[in-house]
Amino acid sequence: MKVGITASKSDDFSEWYTQVVLKAELADYAPVKGLIVLRPDGYSIWESIRTSLDVKLAARGVRNGFLPVLIPESLLGKEKEHFAGFNPEVFWVTHSGENKVGDRLALRPTSETLAYSLYSKWIKSWRDLPLRINFWNTALRAEIKSTKPFLRTSEFLWQEGHTVHACSEEAESEVAAILELYRETVEGDLAIPVITGRKSEKEKFVGAVYTTTMESMMPDGRALQMGTSHFLGQNFSRPFEVKFADKDNVEHFAWQTSWGLSWRLIGAMIMVHGDDKGLVLPPKVAPLQVVIIPISYSGEEGAQVLAAAEGMEAELLKAGIRARTDKREELTPGFKFHDWEMRGVPVRIEIGPRDLKDGSAVLATRHDGKKSKVPLDGAAVNIEEELCRVQTEMLGAAKRALDGMIHDASSYGALTKAVEGGGFVRAAWCGGLECEEKVKEETGADIRVVPEGGAEGACIVCGGRAASIPLFARGY
Amino acid sequence: MKVGITASKSDDFSEWYTQVVLKAELADYAPVKGLIVLRPDGYSIWESIRTSLDVKLAARGVRNGFLPVLIPESLLGKEKEHFAGFNPEVFWVTHSGENKVGDRLALRPTSETLAYSLYSKWIKSWRDLPLRINFWNTALRAEIKSTKPFLRTSEFLWQEGHTVHACSEEAESEVAAILELYRETVEGDLAIPVITGRKSEKEKFVGAVYTTTMESMMPDGRALQMGTSHFLGQNFSRPFEVKFADKDNVEHFAWQTSWGLSWRLIGAMIMVHGDDKGLVLPPKVAPLQVVIIPISYSGEEGAQVLAAAEGMEAELLKAGIRARTDKREELTPGFKFHDWEMRGVPVRIEIGPRDLKDGSAVLATRHDGKKSKVPLDGAAVNIEEELCRVQTEMLGAAKRALDGMIHDASSYGALTKAVEGGGFVRAAWCGGLECEEKVKEETGADIRVVPEGGAEGACIVCGGRAASIPLFARGY
Ligand SMILES: [Zn+2]
Ligand SMILES: [Zn+2]
Repeated sequence: MKVGITASKSDDFSEWYTQVVLKAELADYAPVKGLIVLRPDGYSIWESIRTSLDVKLAARGVRNGFLPVLIPESLLGKEKEHFAGFNPEVFWVTHSGENKVGDRLALRPTSETLAYSLYSKWIKSWRDLPLRINFWNTALRAEIKSTKPFLRTSEFLWQEGHTVHACSEEAESEVAAILELYRETVEGDLAIPVITGRKSEKEKFVGAVYTTTMESMMPDGRALQMGTSHFLGQNFSRPFEVKFADKDNVEHFAWQTSWGLSWRLIGAMIMVHGDDKGLVLPPKVAPLQVVIIPISYSGEEGAQVLAAAEGMEAELLKAGIRARTDKREELTPGFKFHDWEMRGVPVRIEIGPRDLKDGSAVLATRHDGKKSKVPLDGAAVNIEEELCRVQTEMLGAAKRALDGMIHDASSYGALTKAVEGGGFVRAAWCGGLECEEKVKEETGADIRVVPEGGAEGACIVCGGRAASIPLFARGY
Repeated sequence: MKVGITASKSDDFSEWYTQVVLKAELADYAPVKGLIVLRPDGYSIWESIRTSLDVKLAARGVRNGFLPVLIPESLLGKEKEHFAGFNPEVFWVTHSGENKVGDRLALRPTSETLAYSLYSKWIKSWRDLPLRINFWNTALRAEIKSTKPFLRTSEFLWQEGHTVHACSEEAESEVAAILELYRETVEGDLAIPVITGRKSEKEKFVGAVYTTTMESMMPDGRALQMGTSHFLGQNFSRPFEVKFADKDNVEHFAWQTSWGLSWRLIGAMIMVHGDDKGLVLPPKVAPLQVVIIPISYSGEEGAQVLAAAEGMEAELLKAGIRARTDKREELTPGFKFHDWEMRGVPVRIEIGPRDLKDGSAVLATRHDGKKSKVPLDGAAVNIEEELCRVQTEMLGAAKRALDGMIHDASSYGALTKAVEGGGFVRAAWCGGLECEEKVKEETGADIRVVPEGGAEGACIVCGGRAASIPLFARGY
């Protein structure tokens, strides 16, 4: 395997993606088809997402819990529509040691059924509501298509939140608040802009009343679902008997929500920001934010350079910046530049003898390749600002790219043509399943998201009265 | 179910334990036998342990990663002795959807085999060493005996660390350093004293050269293993071909360690510190450290009391203390006292109209039931000190209890009698398997830990020359 990225993002997007994942050491394939492992840099990005979301969830009163991975078949099958949706991709445990287990055990494809069978025991009265619990775990859904790290794997890291409310209004406002909090995380930390709205009836979560979603567009013109928040109404509280007694001691079925996002966000981040040199990491989630490279090693001069590099590293660490000096003497500065560029480190500092003389260092930013001088004195403040600028500029650039990939179509012909070119296509729709299915069949595009607001004019498929203006696209 | 704990710790330890776990809402039973779920207070304690350990591990250069839960049977079977040890309790996946999977898939009982099959790809030269990765996940081992939350479950939360080194000395010193770091976590955060040393050959981890362990003693006289750190030597690097090229480009098999601790620490914490009123939590891991209870609600007076309570809550939160005011008007202060005592909150603050008048509040500590006055002004500093005192005293009390449960036996008769009475029994041993097995068969006691240092005199079983003075006990 050659060291650097040998595929071009524009020429062979899929091969480029795989090379970046493997060579930047974010992930690797596990021995079982469909499964991947995360190496420390990959997992560190997930930890950053987790920490950021945890803070926001805690502020809303959401607490974390733990659910086991095994769900008995009888329980998973309790909500029929839900079960039918997941059944084909469920992994089944049939034996423990030499013994056959009675009821087959499913590896959780999602935990609604398990969580709600417990909630029905835990919730007795209005005092117990709202109940808001989140679970950081994995979900398992057998993938028969070829493995794609972060995007198509049979086990994936995610969080699933499950809340219970006394009235539908509170539950619906929870659904919206969580989606907004997801958006803040994805735009704020991963620098990926998203479009929010609802899924169509056809595309909603099996068992939900409706699903809200945030969608983004990848550089290859295919849409990616970035997270969903579902209003479950009483669809689960009835079969699972999640009931509460109100202040007058009258029993009611509760109103519920569930919501989740997964490590596919990492896949999106790679695709949206990466380039032919490899990964480009937004500073907020970069495992290493600043790499310091001493340019000289020999003699007195080398010692001074190394001392300056280590001094800066200490200063940056003290300021809470994730920084490291690359002291590998056997490698050239040029090799190191390429290596850290491939790994997406947002800021590189070069310190050589000449820099030392005028008390400065060279600062290079990964996302735009620009170089500037930074004074050695008080470097932390400057570099902190620089990291902030990088984060902002990366989101800005991604926003411009997204905007450039949203097209309008006022006829079925225009829609077909636009879908072919990739990106989102905005077109009026009557809301009918037939029209949605015709588009899917003939163009391969789904309705990815129906933004808020009504529509005027006619459905571009059937000519009927338009009800909304969804975004169509081929998706991952 | 009655609200409070109805079983006595001294009369029916097992029933008491289960009631505390369920009524303090740490955990609950899942629908599948052998499995439990963690409710937010239970999971929060695990999160505290995780955070504390993560900081210490990061300081040693250990980073976190992710491994999938499915391991192919052929890979799990690669180290024969290891496989034979785990095989009887492995859950097997045989189907995904309607399709039979080829090679049966094991739910990870532990991840040595999976991790090392990857390490063999990742490690090429001395530059890649040492490699230190830790995984926070669950392990699955089918339990046929009755479920006991945190102590005997078929899936449990744990961490498993796997390191690789160029020489055996470095690996062995890693084994020791990790055990020390475990001890700091358990003694420092959970206030549980431990005894460290090695496991006997019979009790070591299957596949290890040797296992080091920390053991503690529960109030019912049974020992509990609190965490283990294994020196694997080259036992796994040979079958898994974990090799590295040294500076002269000569290939060597690497030296490895693995180590883990699990949520049974939470079980130990409940048993060691709890009392007939319920849970007693060490402040460092308590989800809620201080509960503030307003004593009056009515009229002008009530408003003043509530304002004072909320003022203190804000001050404590600002100081980083986990505090909350219990504003439930429909419940009496007495009910609340009992409720929070059952949940183990370390410090309770009571604020009533009379307290307000002299600018103070009543502070009650859970672990010793003592009450004192605390000035409302600058309460955070006082309460922070109080939490520190509680933490220290709880460890001190637990240390005294442990010391009181270590007995010496200088004859086989004395050993048998001492084992019967519960606790650790220290007795000279020749090191022979036969003597160890005789003790186990006739008394039910295992060798829990062999502390460092040699021994004089004779083995109390066979009269042969003593090699060490292990601690015998019946265990969990
Ligand atoms: Zn139509
Ligand atoms: Zn002997």
